[in-house]
Amino acid sequence: MSVVLVGAGPGDPGLITVRGLEAVRSCEVLVYDRLVAQELVDEAPPWALRIGRERLSQEEISELLVRYGQAGLAVVRLKGGDPFVFGRGGEEAIALAEGGVPFEVVPGVSSLSAVPAAAGIPVTHRGVSAQVTVVAGHAPGALDYEQLAAAAGTLVVFMGLGGLDLLVDGLIAAGRDPETPAAVVENGTLPEQRVVTAPLAELAEAAIGLSPPALVVVGDVVAIAEAIHPEVEQVLARA
Amino acid sequence: MSVVLVGAGPGDPGLITVRGLEAVRSCEVLVYDRLVAQELVDEAPPWALRIGRERLSQEEISELLVRYGQAGLAVVRLKGGDPFVFGRGGEEAIALAEGGVPFEVVPGVSSLSAVPAAAGIPVTHRGVSAQVTVVAGHAPGALDYEQLAAAAGTLVVFMGLGGLDLLVDGLIAAGRDPETPAAVVENGTLPEQRVVTAPLAELAEAAIGLSPPALVVVGDVVAIAEAIHPEVEQVLARA
Repeated sequence: MSVVLVGAGPGDPGLITVRGLEAVRSCEVLVYDRLVAQELVDEAPPWALRIGRERLSQEEISELLVRYGQAGLAVVRLKGGDPFVFGRGGEEAIALAEGGVPFEVVPGVSSLSAVPAAAGIPVTHRGVSAQVTVVAGHAPGALDYEQLAAAAGTLVVFMGLGGLDLLVDGLIAAGRDPETPAAVVENGTLPEQRVVTAPLAELAEAAIGLSPPALVVVGDVVAIAEAIHPEVEQVLARA
Repeated sequence: MSVVLVGAGPGDPGLITVRGLEAVRSCEVLVYDRLVAQELVDEAPPWALRIGRERLSQEEISELLVRYGQAGLAVVRLKGGDPFVFGRGGEEAIALAEGGVPFEVVPGVSSLSAVPAAAGIPVTHRGVSAQVTVVAGHAPGALDYEQLAAAAGTLVVFMGLGGLDLLVDGLIAAGRDPETPAAVVENGTLPEQRVVTAPLAELAEAAIGLSPPALVVVGDVVAIAEAIHPEVEQVLARA
């Protein structure tokens, strides 16, 4: 397989898959995202070409993958989380297919459940939540709050910290209970993880001082964290 | 750490995490789900006690984990997918916390994105879907179809094959376009994977002959599979 799109997982380098790590260890070219752990970049062979994607546009990355792939090199595209959950893996996959480059997708552990889990929050829980809605919150003005406020169960928002006040206002104005338990998890699964929980109405204020990467979780499952993970409370006290 | 709740991933044994596999390889007691790959069960040390969960109730499993955990044994609870995405990991975690047993959660690759990915379907895709709604479909009469039909983006249904006709009828009656691209993926990520795609209105008929485990995907992202994975069409032709 010439190009492998690999999900690196939510942050902790131990959460890459066995298959994904094997691909990294045998690659000739590694193109990696900013949030991928340095430990995983270091797993590539010493002679492998390493390309951080910071100064590259999505189009340039796709071109690069196609060019090295067509040259027959073993290319790994290492992406945070899962390539197909807000990872733009589909765009790269289409570019590769159009370029006639054989490729494979190795899924990764998505932040969508792993980051809440690291804060003691199960996104589903019997009798509490049997539905998860996942959205990107980088453009909070573009969200359909009527629909999101009506969604049952747990709401998980990627990239929601920057516009958190708008997100919260939108949900409450559309009818979501201001008392709904909610959380922001910064640097989830990493040693420097920080968790803030608050009723939805107070979440933006509680989260002042946190920075991306962060995941927002809204729903009654947040309250379960106290039963699962008593340390969460202590993390809050320290924060 | 006395008890570790480990997500085994969606089926393919190579999709367990590095951390999860390490836990299995060093356990003394392995309690595993029916759908976990035999290859992973075989990774436990030869002297480890292996307990398949078939004839155990959820309560009995939780009791078992607490009992062996309190005895100080290294216990791994290996679950399909991710422990906290329809995995009932929260219930086991609460039982362990209440029993005073130290535990850890190692998240897994959830079927929710990995199984569609194995069929060439990205659950999110720029310009097509920026939202994923995940529900369990084992009781299709209990679902809120108004809300699900109104949800933007991609709908992923776990355990939806048994009541697929009711699910489809419910979505269409509530206003979801009968022409919406849809798919059922049986045994996703495994060599025996089968994929069926059809417009939503014809999905139940198209899926006759498929058996659980299967994941249902509804949304325009299903149509992207043709661009990403031309083989999907051929799989269909063979099915």
